[in-house]
Amino acid sequence: MKHLISSEQFTTDLLHELFVLADQMKSNPRDFDDALKHKVVATLFYEPSTRTRLSFESAVQRLGAKLISTENAREMSSAIKGENIHDSIRVVQGYCDAIIVRHYENDAALKATEVARVPIINAGGGTGEHPTQALLDLYTIYSFKQRISGIKIAVLGDLKNGRTIHSLLKGLALYSDIEVFGLSRKGLELPDEYIHYLRDKGITYHAISSLEDIPASIDVLYHTRTQTERMNGEEAGSGEIIIDQAVMNRFSDQSLLMHPLPRNQEISADVDSDPRAIYFKQSENGLFIRMALLYSYLG
Amino acid sequence: MKHLISSEQFTTDLLHELFVLADQMKSNPRDFDDALKHKVVATLFYEPSTRTRLSFESAVQRLGAKLISTENAREMSSAIKGENIHDSIRVVQGYCDAIIVRHYENDAALKATEVARVPIINAGGGTGEHPTQALLDLYTIYSFKQRISGIKIAVLGDLKNGRTIHSLLKGLALYSDIEVFGLSRKGLELPDEYIHYLRDKGITYHAISSLEDIPASIDVLYHTRTQTERMNGEEAGSGEIIIDQAVMNRFSDQSLLMHPLPRNQEISADVDSDPRAIYFKQSENGLFIRMALLYSYLG
Amino acid sequence: MKHLISSEQFTTDLLHELFVLADQMKSNPRDFDDALKHKVVATLFYEPSTRTRLSFESAVQRLGAKLISTENAREMSSAIKGENIHDSIRVVQGYCDAIIVRHYENDAALKATEVARVPIINAGGGTGEHPTQALLDLYTIYSFKQRISGIKIAVLGDLKNGRTIHSLLKGLALYSDIEVFGLSRKGLELPDEYIHYLRDKGITYHAISSLEDIPASIDVLYHTRTQTERMNGEEAGSGEIIIDQAVMNRFSDQSLLMHPLPRNQEISADVDSDPRAIYFKQSENGLFIRMALLYSYLG
Repeated sequence: MKHLISSEQFTTDLLHELFVLADQMKSNPRDFDDALKHKVVATLFYEPSTRTRLSFESAVQRLGAKLISTENAREMSSAIKGENIHDSIRVVQGYCDAIIVRHYENDAALKATEVARVPIINAGGGTGEHPTQALLDLYTIYSFKQRISGIKIAVLGDLKNGRTIHSLLKGLALYSDIEVFGLSRKGLELPDEYIHYLRDKGITYHAISSLEDIPASIDVLYHTRTQTERMNGEEAGSGEIIIDQAVMNRFSDQSLLMHPLPRNQEISADVDSDPRAIYFKQSENGLFIRMALLYSYLG
Repeated sequence: MKHLISSEQFTTDLLHELFVLADQMKSNPRDFDDALKHKVVATLFYEPSTRTRLSFESAVQRLGAKLISTENAREMSSAIKGENIHDSIRVVQGYCDAIIVRHYENDAALKATEVARVPIINAGGGTGEHPTQALLDLYTIYSFKQRISGIKIAVLGDLKNGRTIHSLLKGLALYSDIEVFGLSRKGLELPDEYIHYLRDKGITYHAISSLEDIPASIDVLYHTRTQTERMNGEEAGSGEIIIDQAVMNRFSDQSLLMHPLPRNQEISADVDSDPRAIYFKQSENGLFIRMALLYSYLG
Repeated sequence: MKHLISSEQFTTDLLHELFVLADQMKSNPRDFDDALKHKVVATLFYEPSTRTRLSFESAVQRLGAKLISTENAREMSSAIKGENIHDSIRVVQGYCDAIIVRHYENDAALKATEVARVPIINAGGGTGEHPTQALLDLYTIYSFKQRISGIKIAVLGDLKNGRTIHSLLKGLALYSDIEVFGLSRKGLELPDEYIHYLRDKGITYHAISSLEDIPASIDVLYHTRTQTERMNGEEAGSGEIIIDQAVMNRFSDQSLLMHPLPRNQEISADVDSDPRAIYFKQSENGLFIRMALLYSYLG
């Protein structure tokens, strides 16, 4: 029995296997039409996350599996105080062969595995893990660079609260010879625990104070949205790091611009047509890597 | 790349092609079982519209395509002010081969086409276009009368606010020798722009003041619901045009009674068993004409 | 045309046919992969009921049928006061081959049958019938005991408001030589109408006052949740009947513990690993008996 709960479960071997499989699925989608023909997969979302859900639901069906779906899973437990995720999982696994869980609590997917006899896949939990986002980010770097080791990456935006950044850094730490530049406005710096984590893995982390400090030869610029909805007006209004075409012009023609989406104004629309702006391809890669993951767990 | 955004895109050739295809699908549904086997279609509804969604979702699946679905699309953009339909479409088209959009704003589907590389089908936008409703109305007239040219039609009810009426009239204007009678209570008359539009296309429009003014030989009576939820109590309460069996008895046995549904009291239940009352068949035709449309765009 | 509205429609012959079919589906699921390949089934839920919906939706798809689904059916009628279930059914049946209805009103599914030309299956209505719950309960007893006649059963908990108990007792009353023990806290006793119903069918009903009064050789303990959300705090807090391992130790190794779920504290978690605690298998049986029902109605 395999579950995917945390990006700390990844190994370079597992990742490589998934990347190769995702590449095959992208090139020859019809080879996998009936791959999971006899399976039923449930998406059990305790909070709406339309993009993630649609991506998983397309992946499930492109593999020929059946889908049962709810964005309303919170209703299952709200009728009676105290019903726990354990019982919900025990019931729902009676109807399906794998459960994709999105929850408003960080540890719900982990709790689910305590009673599950079908694979549990964490589709994001509270402010914690979102391992398939890390997967699609790493796969995107791999598919554009044909390698991850030796990558120089600048992470930008909200380094404090962005779980995407945290998961990505953990994933990168599996590889050798990674160099990371971090740029945020004051107060949103990368927490010390992640700096120490990187250092322990032998990764150089440069806290920088300006876009000018990023080398022109950078491999990846990874920008994120400042979660202004969690700030007061004054904090939210000032010091946003904006990437526009003028900024992009400073970097090499191999410097990729990534973003987990949705974006706000931190990447201006004039960059969209730059071939280095790959955030929509990154999002699309979510489909193929999720297909690879489901196939690897259920095939 | 084809999109369906407005009923002004229709031509008699396109309509005829769709009508013939819809007839085939009605007669031999199994011939199309696997027609779109390798396609995934998304229904992206920014506001709920259960009937329209279920009709499209049945059509998608009867053609063998996979379905990913949300009535909750508004959630995608609400988390962050300012995310636009462009980015949502760019992301979702990474998961599917066509997107059916229902939106609370009139021009959202049109905006969607600016970035779409998959077909966009407008499933109703704000107070504006709802082209597949016009399609099913025209198809229903065609399938009962074997022609549209030469039709005499009376449009009844809320001629001012009813987008269904407006789209239907634009569709009818493609054909020759159409005669239109319009009856509403005071204040809900057909707007001048539509009267001029019809006149420019050579169509006679008669604004009438009573059901008595409709010729007994009328081909189609097309009734609509008065959108009383947008009125104050006094306006809403008075002067409703009611069609009951006594009214129907005045018309020929070839006079069809249509309604886009849902209805309120404007058609009384005693008419339901009259063979000329075809509003439920009209609704069912929505399935076949939407199948034809999807097949024509994706097949 | 067949509809399933009430558990009073059951006969022992019909039940036996469904039990045998459900057993086949459990043993050889792949034999039924394409059984309903050309059918479309709608789940039309006027109130959310995630478990019941997911169970039906898995059943529909495991038989190869297509699914159209809404938890939002109330929206169809809310836009306009007075739209009735009749019109909704007339429209939706134009898109599908069977409709599974969940409604907040007791008699909505019955009303649906007045105009339906496709099978209507009642998935629970208000405080009234929930016939497929009774089906899965009876099937569970049958599948563990290989018989229903001659069963001794204790029903526990909220015997007054629990529609599950009421439907189950009506189902048991079809069989011979049934003996029922009923235990509730004060005020939640089995209503007289059900006691009379059982007596009329020749079933002995013992109203008991303590778990001690249940014979150690009981075949089935059927516990239910006290619907405390309908009570004031004082009532809710006292006198709950708790089944824990110490209680279970008093009963024979053939005494099964059932519960319709969700449970609250009335069954303690330490019982979950007791092989006689079959409530999750009971829930899973809902999948197979619903498959059998759909196949029997549409196959």
